[in-house]
Amino acid sequence: MEKINLKEKLSMFSEHWSPKIVAEMNDYHIKLVKIKGDFVWHNHDDTDETFIVIEGKMKIEFEDKTIELNEGEMYVVPKGVNHKPFAEEECKIMLIEPTGVVNTGDVVSDLTSSNDTWI
Amino acid sequence: MEKINLKEKLSMFSEHWSPKIVAEMNDYHIKLVKIKGDFVWHNHDDTDETFIVIEGKMKIEFEDKTIELNEGEMYVVPKGVNHKPFAEEECKIMLIEPTGVVNTGDVVSDLTSSNDTWI
Repeated sequence: MEKINLKEKLSMFSEHWSPKIVAEMNDYHIKLVKIKGDFVWHNHDDTDETFIVIEGKMKIEFEDKTIELNEGEMYVVPKGVNHKPFAEEECKIMLIEPTGVVNTGDVVSDLTSSNDTWI
Repeated sequence: MEKINLKEKLSMFSEHWSPKIVAEMNDYHIKLVKIKGDFVWHNHDDTDETFIVIEGKMKIEFEDKTIELNEGEMYVVPKGVNHKPFAEEECKIMLIEPTGVVNTGDVVSDLTSSNDTWI
């Protein structure tokens, strides 16, 4: 494989809420995604999900709290926990999750995206 | 869990080649490590290993090539592939690997470190 430059990969797409795979390790994917506005409430029944903010800031709303993540901050959403990501301005993030995970989890919505698009 | 600030976590230790766990997702650990100088040749028989450079630059020597990773660049070393990380000046990196992975893989050396130290 070749090395991966995260900023270069981020410059290759502009749509929001549409994760792109940049690397595979074992049966996990490392994805980049740009987000803006409100996502849908959802959960992932059988996996944790890691968010790492590369640029900008975002919030993740839970049923009992809301956390704010700034550049260089990360959070692991436990499996089965309902959450709703949100970003007032565009935010660029890395996701780590098993191969095959669908972005909207248990919910089908207009925001449901392909789970196998590489850049 | 609480959110994790990567720079804050990196300020909590100074030793080299001694990975610290900052998060667990499923059966994977996300670790931070500061490296400087030469590591040992080794491989991980049963897992890929992901390197992401947070600050500085590093090289990974393979039997047939050497790659250089700068800030914001990443690489997945395939399982079973011999490699030797190296950094001329201190470099701060994130590692993603299954729980229980030992830093020196198949080799025991003075650089072999604990695989369960959290910060």
